[in-house]
Amino acid sequence: MDFKELATQRRSAIKFMEGVEITDEDLNKIFELTKLAPSCFNLQHTRYVVIRDKEKKEKVREAAWGQYKVHTASAVVLVFGDKKAFENVESIYMGMKMLKMIDEYEYQDIITQTRALYTGKGERFQEDEAIRNASLSAMSFMYAAQHYGWDTCPMIGFEEEAMKTVLNAPDNLVPVLMITIGKTDESSIRSRGYRKPVAEFVAYESF
Amino acid sequence: MDFKELATQRRSAIKFMEGVEITDEDLNKIFELTKLAPSCFNLQHTRYVVIRDKEKKEKVREAAWGQYKVHTASAVVLVFGDKKAFENVESIYMGMKMLKMIDEYEYQDIITQTRALYTGKGERFQEDEAIRNASLSAMSFMYAAQHYGWDTCPMIGFEEEAMKTVLNAPDNLVPVLMITIGKTDESSIRSRGYRKPVAEFVAYESF
Repeated sequence: MDFKELATQRRSAIKFMEGVEITDEDLNKIFELTKLAPSCFNLQHTRYVVIRDKEKKEKVREAAWGQYKVHTASAVVLVFGDKKAFENVESIYMGMKMLKMIDEYEYQDIITQTRALYTGKGERFQEDEAIRNASLSAMSFMYAAQHYGWDTCPMIGFEEEAMKTVLNAPDNLVPVLMITIGKTDESSIRSRGYRKPVAEFVAYESF
Repeated sequence: MDFKELATQRRSAIKFMEGVEITDEDLNKIFELTKLAPSCFNLQHTRYVVIRDKEKKEKVREAAWGQYKVHTASAVVLVFGDKKAFENVESIYMGMKMLKMIDEYEYQDIITQTRALYTGKGERFQEDEAIRNASLSAMSFMYAAQHYGWDTCPMIGFEEEAMKTVLNAPDNLVPVLMITIGKTDESSIRSRGYRKPVAEFVAYESF
Protein backbone atom coordinates (compact mmCIF):
# COMPACT_ATOMS: atom_id res chain seq x y z
CA MET A 1 0.00 0.00 0.00
CA ASP A 2 1.48 3.35 -0.99
CA PHE A 3 1.36 6.50 1.14
CA LYS A 4 -1.68 7.91 -0.66
CA GLU A 5 -3.70 4.82 0.26
CA LEU A 6 -2.25 4.72 3.77
CA ALA A 7 -3.11 8.36 4.47
CA THR A 8 -6.57 7.90 2.98
CA GLN A 9 -7.29 4.77 5.02
CA ARG A 10 -5.87 6.10 8.30
CA ARG A 11 -8.66 7.07 10.63
CA SER A 12 -8.56 7.89 14.31
CA ALA A 13 -9.99 4.80 15.99
CA ILE A 14 -13.38 5.35 17.63
CA LYS A 15 -13.57 2.00 19.44
CA PHE A 16 -11.08 -0.81 19.84
CA MET A 17 -11.79 -4.54 19.98
CA GLU A 18 -11.08 -5.59 23.54
CA GLY A 19 -8.54 -8.25 24.44
CA VAL A 20 -6.25 -7.91 21.38
CA GLU A 21 -2.61 -8.29 22.38
CA ILE A 22 0.20 -6.27 20.87
CA THR A 23 3.63 -7.89 21.27
CA ASP A 24 7.09 -6.42 21.84
CA GLU A 25 7.92 -7.46 18.28
CA ASP A 26 4.91 -5.59 16.85
CA LEU A 27 5.90 -2.47 18.76
CA ASN A 28 9.55 -2.75 17.89
CA LYS A 29 8.82 -2.81 14.16
CA ILE A 30 6.75 0.36 14.54
CA PHE A 31 9.48 2.13 16.53
CA GLU A 32 12.16 1.12 14.01
CA LEU A 33 10.31 3.23 11.41
CA THR A 34 9.35 5.95 13.89
CA LYS A 35 12.97 6.62 14.74
CA LEU A 36 13.67 7.79 11.18
CA ALA A 37 11.50 10.89 11.69
CA PRO A 38 13.37 14.19 11.46
CA SER A 39 14.20 16.36 14.48
CA CYS A 40 15.89 19.72 14.93
CA PHE A 41 19.68 19.21 14.77
CA ASN A 42 18.86 15.49 14.91
CA LEU A 43 18.48 15.83 18.68
CA GLN A 44 15.77 13.15 18.83
CA HIS A 45 13.76 14.89 21.54
CA THR A 46 11.06 12.21 21.69
CA ARG A 47 10.56 9.59 24.41
CA TYR A 48 7.81 6.97 24.46
CA VAL A 49 6.29 4.99 27.29
CA VAL A 50 4.21 1.94 26.33
CA ILE A 51 1.64 0.76 28.85
CA ARG A 52 0.09 -2.71 28.51
CA ASP A 53 -0.10 -3.89 32.11
CA LYS A 54 -3.80 -3.94 33.08
CA GLU A 55 -3.43 -2.26 36.46
CA LYS A 56 -1.07 0.38 35.14
CA LYS A 57 -3.43 1.05 32.25
CA GLU A 58 -6.25 1.77 34.70
CA LYS A 59 -4.01 4.28 36.48
CA VAL A 60 -3.28 5.96 33.17
CA ARG A 61 -7.01 5.92 32.46
CA GLU A 62 -7.66 7.74 35.75
CA ALA A 63 -5.21 10.48 34.69
CA ALA A 64 -7.05 10.57 31.34
CA TRP A 65 -10.47 11.48 32.67
CA GLY A 66 -11.59 7.84 32.72
CA GLN A 67 -11.77 7.56 28.94
CA TYR A 68 -13.02 4.12 27.89
CA LYS A 69 -10.71 3.92 24.87
CA VAL A 70 -7.73 3.66 27.22
CA HIS A 71 -9.31 0.57 28.75
CA THR A 72 -9.99 -1.23 25.45
CA ALA A 73 -6.78 -0.33 23.58
CA SER A 74 -4.12 -3.04 23.21
CA ALA A 75 -1.61 -0.51 24.52
CA VAL A 76 -1.52 3.13 25.52
CA VAL A 77 1.54 5.00 24.33
CA LEU A 78 2.53 8.23 26.06
CA VAL A 79 4.65 10.56 23.94
CA PHE A 80 7.00 12.97 25.72
CA GLY A 81 9.36 15.63 24.42
CA ASP A 82 12.65 16.39 26.15
CA LYS A 83 13.01 20.13 26.63
CA LYS A 84 16.67 19.64 27.52
CA ALA A 85 17.48 17.47 24.47
CA PHE A 86 20.04 20.07 23.32
CA GLU A 87 22.18 19.24 26.35
CA ASN A 88 22.85 15.81 24.80
CA VAL A 89 24.12 17.23 21.53
CA GLU A 90 27.67 15.96 22.13
CA SER A 91 26.54 12.36 22.58
CA ILE A 92 24.48 12.49 19.36
CA TYR A 93 27.39 13.78 17.25
CA MET A 94 30.33 12.05 18.97
CA GLY A 95 29.63 8.77 17.15
CA MET A 96 29.44 10.55 13.79
CA LYS A 97 32.80 12.18 14.49
CA MET A 98 34.35 8.85 15.46
CA LEU A 99 33.01 7.30 12.23
CA LYS A 100 34.52 10.27 10.35
CA MET A 101 31.10 11.24 8.95
CA ILE A 102 31.95 14.73 10.22
CA ASP A 103 35.34 16.24 11.04
CA GLU A 104 36.41 18.02 14.22
CA TYR A 105 35.55 21.45 12.79
CA GLU A 106 32.02 20.40 11.78
CA TYR A 107 31.54 18.71 15.14
CA GLN A 108 32.47 21.85 17.09
CA ASP A 109 30.35 23.99 14.80
CA ILE A 110 27.23 21.85 15.34
CA ILE A 111 27.73 21.85 19.13
CA THR A 112 28.13 25.62 19.18
CA GLN A 113 25.17 26.28 16.88
CA THR A 114 22.84 23.92 18.74
CA ARG A 115 23.64 25.34 22.17
CA ALA A 116 23.43 28.92 20.86
CA LEU A 117 19.98 28.30 19.35
CA TYR A 118 18.44 26.68 22.43
CA THR A 119 20.01 28.84 25.11
CA GLY A 120 19.58 31.97 23.00
CA LYS A 121 15.87 31.41 22.40
CA GLY A 122 15.27 30.39 26.01
CA GLU A 123 13.01 28.13 28.05
CA ARG A 124 9.77 28.71 26.23
CA PHE A 125 11.40 27.77 22.92
CA GLN A 126 12.88 24.66 24.55
CA GLU A 127 9.39 23.58 25.58
CA ASP A 128 7.93 24.42 22.17
CA GLU A 129 10.67 22.35 20.58
CA ALA A 130 9.78 19.40 22.82
CA ILE A 131 6.16 19.60 21.62
CA ARG A 132 7.06 20.25 17.97
CA ASN A 133 9.63 17.48 17.58
CA ALA A 134 7.65 14.90 19.59
CA SER A 135 4.61 15.65 17.41
CA LEU A 136 6.59 15.07 14.20
CA SER A 137 7.67 11.75 15.69
CA ALA A 138 4.15 10.88 16.91
CA MET A 139 2.67 11.36 13.44
CA SER A 140 5.35 9.05 12.06
CA PHE A 141 4.46 6.52 14.78
CA MET A 142 0.80 6.57 13.72
CA TYR A 143 1.61 6.00 10.04
CA ALA A 144 4.10 3.26 10.93
CA ALA A 145 1.50 1.58 13.16
CA GLN A 146 -1.02 1.62 10.35
CA HIS A 147 1.53 0.28 7.90
CA TYR A 148 1.80 -2.77 10.15
CA GLY A 149 -1.97 -3.12 10.53
CA TRP A 150 -2.56 -1.29 13.82
CA ASP A 151 -5.10 1.46 14.37
CA THR A 152 -4.38 4.46 16.56
CA CYS A 153 -6.07 7.46 18.10
CA PRO A 154 -4.13 10.56 19.21
CA MET A 155 -5.57 11.98 22.44
CA ILE A 156 -4.88 15.11 24.45
CA GLY A 157 -7.49 14.69 27.19
CA PHE A 158 -5.41 13.97 30.26
CA GLU A 159 -3.99 15.71 33.31
CA GLU A 160 -0.33 16.42 32.58
CA GLU A 161 0.94 16.38 36.16
CA ALA A 162 -1.05 13.30 37.14
CA MET A 163 0.25 11.48 34.07
CA LYS A 164 3.85 12.42 34.85
CA THR A 165 3.40 11.07 38.37
CA VAL A 166 1.84 7.78 37.21
CA LEU A 167 4.70 7.22 34.78
CA ASN A 168 7.46 8.56 37.01
CA ALA A 169 8.51 11.03 34.29
CA PRO A 170 11.56 13.21 35.00
CA ASP A 171 11.14 17.01 35.03
CA ASN A 172 12.84 17.59 31.68
CA LEU A 173 10.10 15.67 29.86
CA VAL A 174 6.94 17.40 28.60
CA PRO A 175 3.86 15.18 28.01
CA VAL A 176 2.88 15.85 24.41
CA LEU A 177 0.31 13.27 23.35
CA MET A 178 -1.35 10.04 24.38
CA ILE A 179 -1.82 7.52 21.58
CA THR A 180 -4.10 4.53 22.02
CA ILE A 181 -3.29 1.62 19.72
CA GLY A 182 -5.19 -1.54 18.90
CA LYS A 183 -7.52 -3.05 16.32
CA THR A 184 -10.58 -1.00 15.41
CA ASP A 185 -13.99 -2.50 16.01
CA GLU A 186 -15.13 -2.24 12.38
CA SER A 187 -18.74 -1.69 13.41
CA SER A 188 -17.67 1.65 14.96
CA ILE A 189 -16.36 3.15 11.70
CA ARG A 190 -18.22 6.24 10.50
CA SER A 191 -17.70 8.60 7.59
CA ARG A 192 -14.57 10.70 7.95
CA GLY A 193 -15.10 14.06 9.63
CA TYR A 194 -15.41 17.12 7.44
CA ARG A 195 -12.16 18.45 6.03
CA LYS A 196 -11.71 22.03 4.88
CA PRO A 197 -10.97 22.41 1.16
CA VAL A 198 -7.28 23.10 0.41
CA ALA A 199 -7.97 26.73 -0.53
CA GLU A 200 -9.21 27.38 3.01
CA PHE A 201 -5.98 26.39 4.73
CA VAL A 202 -3.34 27.19 2.10
CA ALA A 203 -2.40 30.72 1.03
CA TYR A 204 0.08 31.79 -1.63
CA GLU A 205 2.83 34.39 -1.03
CA SER A 206 1.15 35.86 2.08
CA PHE A 207 -2.08 35.94 4.10
CA MET B 1 6.42 2.36 -2.60
CA ASP B 2 5.05 1.36 0.80
CA PHE B 3 5.43 3.40 3.97
CA LYS B 4 8.44 1.44 5.19
CA GLU B 5 10.36 2.34 2.02
CA LEU B 6 9.07 5.90 2.07
CA ALA B 7 10.12 6.48 5.69
CA THR B 8 13.50 4.85 5.02
CA GLN B 9 14.15 6.92 1.91
CA ARG B 10 12.94 10.22 3.38
CA ARG B 11 15.90 12.41 4.27
CA SER B 12 16.01 16.06 5.16
CA ALA B 13 17.36 17.75 2.04
CA ILE B 14 20.86 19.22 2.47
CA LYS B 15 20.99 21.10 -0.83
CA PHE B 16 18.38 21.68 -3.53
CA MET B 17 18.92 21.88 -7.28
CA GLU B 18 18.35 25.49 -8.22
CA GLY B 19 15.73 26.57 -10.74
CA VAL B 20 13.32 23.63 -10.36
CA GLU B 21 9.70 24.79 -10.56
CA ILE B 22 6.92 23.38 -8.42
CA THR B 23 3.45 23.97 -9.86
CA ASP B 24 0.09 24.66 -8.22
CA GLU B 25 -0.96 21.18 -9.29
CA ASP B 26 2.07 19.56 -7.60
CA LEU B 27 1.32 21.44 -4.39
CA ASN B 28 -2.39 20.75 -4.52
CA LYS B 29 -1.84 16.99 -4.70
CA ILE B 30 0.39 17.19 -1.62
CA PHE B 31 -2.15 19.27 0.32
CA GLU B 32 -4.99 16.90 -0.61
CA LEU B 33 -3.17 14.17 1.35
CA THR B 34 -1.97 16.54 4.08
CA LYS B 35 -5.51 17.55 4.93
CA LEU B 36 -6.32 13.98 6.07
CA ALA B 37 -3.99 14.32 9.07
CA PRO B 38 -5.72 14.10 12.46
CA SER B 39 -6.29 17.10 14.73
CA CYS B 40 -7.79 17.56 18.17
CA PHE B 41 -11.60 17.60 17.85
CA ASN B 42 -10.96 17.78 14.08
CA LEU B 43 -10.39 21.52 14.50
CA GLN B 44 -7.80 21.60 11.69
CA HIS B 45 -5.58 24.18 13.38
CA THR B 46 -3.01 24.26 10.57
CA ARG B 47 -2.49 27.01 8.00
CA TYR B 48 0.13 27.00 5.25
CA VAL B 49 1.69 29.80 3.25
CA VAL B 50 3.56 28.81 0.10
CA ILE B 51 6.21 31.25 -1.15
CA ARG B 52 7.57 30.91 -4.68
CA ASP B 53 7.89 34.52 -5.81
CA LYS B 54 11.62 35.33 -6.02
CA GLU B 55 11.48 38.69 -4.25
CA LYS B 56 9.19 37.41 -1.52
CA LYS B 57 11.44 34.40 -1.03
CA GLU B 58 14.40 36.69 -0.40
CA LYS B 59 12.39 38.51 2.27
CA VAL B 60 11.57 35.20 3.90
CA ARG B 61 15.24 34.33 3.68
CA GLU B 62 16.16 37.53 5.53
CA ALA B 63 13.78 36.52 8.35
CA ALA B 64 15.46 33.08 8.28
CA TRP B 65 18.98 34.24 9.05
CA GLY B 66 19.93 34.31 5.36
CA GLN B 67 19.91 30.54 5.00
CA TYR B 68 20.95 29.51 1.48
CA LYS B 69 18.48 26.61 1.33
CA VAL B 70 15.60 29.09 1.26
CA HIS B 71 17.13 30.64 -1.88
CA THR B 72 17.56 27.35 -3.78
CA ALA B 73 14.30 25.61 -2.76
CA SER B 74 11.50 25.43 -5.34
CA ALA B 75 9.18 26.79 -2.66
CA VAL B 76 9.31 27.72 0.99
CA VAL B 77 6.28 26.62 2.99
CA LEU B 78 5.54 28.31 6.30
CA VAL B 79 3.42 26.25 8.67
CA PHE B 80 1.28 28.08 11.22
CA GLY B 81 -1.01 26.83 13.97
CA ASP B 82 -4.18 28.69 14.93
CA LYS B 83 -4.33 29.10 18.69
CA LYS B 84 -7.97 30.17 18.40
CA ALA B 85 -9.03 27.21 16.21
CA PHE B 86 -11.50 26.12 18.90
CA GLU B 87 -13.53 29.26 18.25
CA ASN B 88 -14.43 27.84 14.82
CA VAL B 89 -15.79 24.59 16.22
CA GLU B 90 -19.38 25.39 15.14
CA SER B 91 -18.40 25.88 11.51
CA ILE B 92 -16.49 22.56 11.47
CA TYR B 93 -19.43 20.56 12.84
CA MET B 94 -22.36 22.44 11.30
CA GLY B 95 -21.91 20.68 7.96
CA MET B 96 -21.79 17.27 9.65
CA LYS B 97 -25.03 18.09 11.45
CA MET B 98 -26.70 19.21 8.22
CA LEU B 99 -25.58 15.96 6.54
CA LYS B 100 -27.04 14.08 9.53
CA MET B 101 -23.64 12.50 10.30
CA ILE B 102 -24.27 13.72 13.87
CA ASP B 103 -27.53 14.65 15.56
CA GLU B 104 -28.38 17.84 17.46
CA TYR B 105 -27.42 16.30 20.82
CA GLU B 106 -23.99 15.16 19.56
CA TYR B 107 -23.43 18.53 17.92
CA GLN B 108 -24.13 20.43 21.13
CA ASP B 109 -22.02 17.99 23.13
CA ILE B 110 -18.98 18.44 20.85
CA ILE B 111 -19.30 22.24 20.95
CA THR B 112 -19.52 22.23 24.75
CA GLN B 113 -16.64 19.77 25.22
CA THR B 114 -14.34 21.59 22.78
CA ARG B 115 -14.90 25.01 24.32
CA ALA B 116 -14.59 23.60 27.84
CA LEU B 117 -11.25 21.96 27.03
CA TYR B 118 -9.65 24.99 25.40
CA THR B 119 -10.98 27.70 27.69
CA GLY B 120 -10.49 25.49 30.77
CA LYS B 121 -6.85 24.74 29.99
CA GLY B 122 -6.11 28.34 29.04
CA GLU B 123 -3.88 30.32 26.71
CA ARG B 124 -0.71 28.34 27.09
CA PHE B 125 -2.54 25.13 26.17
CA GLN B 126 -4.09 26.90 23.16
CA GLU B 127 -0.60 27.80 21.94
CA ASP B 128 0.72 24.30 22.64
CA GLU B 129 -2.19 22.89 20.66
CA ALA B 130 -1.33 25.16 17.72
CA ILE B 131 2.22 23.78 17.72
CA ARG B 132 1.18 20.16 18.33
CA ASN B 133 -1.52 19.95 15.68
CA ALA B 134 0.42 21.93 13.07
CA SER B 135 3.38 19.60 13.61
CA LEU B 136 1.23 16.49 13.06
CA SER B 137 0.07 18.11 9.83
CA ALA B 138 3.59 19.19 8.82
CA MET B 139 4.93 15.64 9.15
CA SER B 140 2.08 14.45 6.93
CA PHE B 141 2.98 17.18 4.43
CA MET B 142 6.58 15.95 4.29
CA TYR B 143 5.57 12.32 3.67
CA ALA B 144 3.00 13.40 1.08
CA ALA B 145 5.62 15.53 -0.67
CA GLN B 146 8.01 12.62 -0.81
CA HIS B 147 5.28 10.33 -2.10
CA TYR B 148 4.97 12.66 -5.09
CA GLY B 149 8.74 12.88 -5.59
CA TRP B 150 9.55 16.08 -3.73
CA ASP B 151 12.25 16.44 -1.08
CA THR B 152 11.78 18.60 2.00
CA CYS B 153 13.69 20.00 4.92
CA PRO B 154 11.96 21.12 8.14
CA MET B 155 13.63 24.24 9.58
CA ILE B 156 13.17 26.21 12.77
CA GLY B 157 15.90 28.82 12.28
CA PHE B 158 13.93 32.01 11.72
CA GLU B 159 12.73 35.08 13.60
CA GLU B 160 9.09 34.50 14.46
CA GLU B 161 8.00 38.14 14.58
CA ALA B 162 9.88 39.10 11.43
CA MET B 163 8.34 36.13 9.60
CA LYS B 164 4.84 37.07 10.73
CA THR B 165 5.40 40.59 9.44
CA VAL B 166 6.74 39.45 6.06
CA LEU B 167 3.73 37.15 5.57
CA ASN B 168 1.16 39.48 7.10
CA ALA B 169 0.10 36.76 9.55
CA PRO B 170 -2.80 37.54 11.90
CA ASP B 171 -2.21 37.47 15.66
CA ASN B 172 -4.02 34.18 16.26
CA LEU B 173 -1.47 32.29 14.15
CA VAL B 174 1.70 30.84 15.70
CA PRO B 175 4.63 30.17 13.32
CA VAL B 176 5.46 26.50 13.87
CA LEU B 177 7.85 25.39 11.16
CA MET B 178 9.41 26.41 7.87
CA ILE B 179 9.62 23.65 5.27
CA THR B 180 11.77 24.05 2.19
CA ILE B 181 10.71 21.87 -0.73
CA GLY B 182 12.43 21.04 -3.99
CA LYS B 183 14.56 18.39 -5.67
CA THR B 184 17.67 17.30 -3.79
CA ASP B 185 21.02 17.77 -5.43
CA GLU B 186 22.00 14.08 -5.32
CA SER B 187 25.67 14.93 -4.92
CA SER B 188 24.85 16.42 -1.48
CA ILE B 189 23.45 13.20 -0.01
CA ARG B 190 25.41 11.84 2.96
CA SER B 191 24.84 8.90 5.28
CA ARG B 192 21.84 9.35 7.53
CA GLY B 193 22.62 10.94 10.88
CA TYR B 194 22.96 8.67 13.89
CA ARG B 195 19.69 7.37 15.35
CA LYS B 196 19.37 6.16 18.93
CA PRO B 197 18.48 2.47 19.25
CA VAL B 198 14.80 1.89 20.11
CA ALA B 199 15.61 0.83 23.68
CA GLU B 200 17.04 4.29 24.35
CA PHE B 201 13.85 6.18 23.54
CA VAL B 202 11.14 3.65 24.42
CA ALA B 203 10.30 2.55 27.96
CA TYR B 204 7.76 -0.02 29.10
CA GLU B 205 5.16 0.66 31.81
CA SER B 206 7.07 3.63 33.29
CA PHE B 207 10.38 5.52 33.23
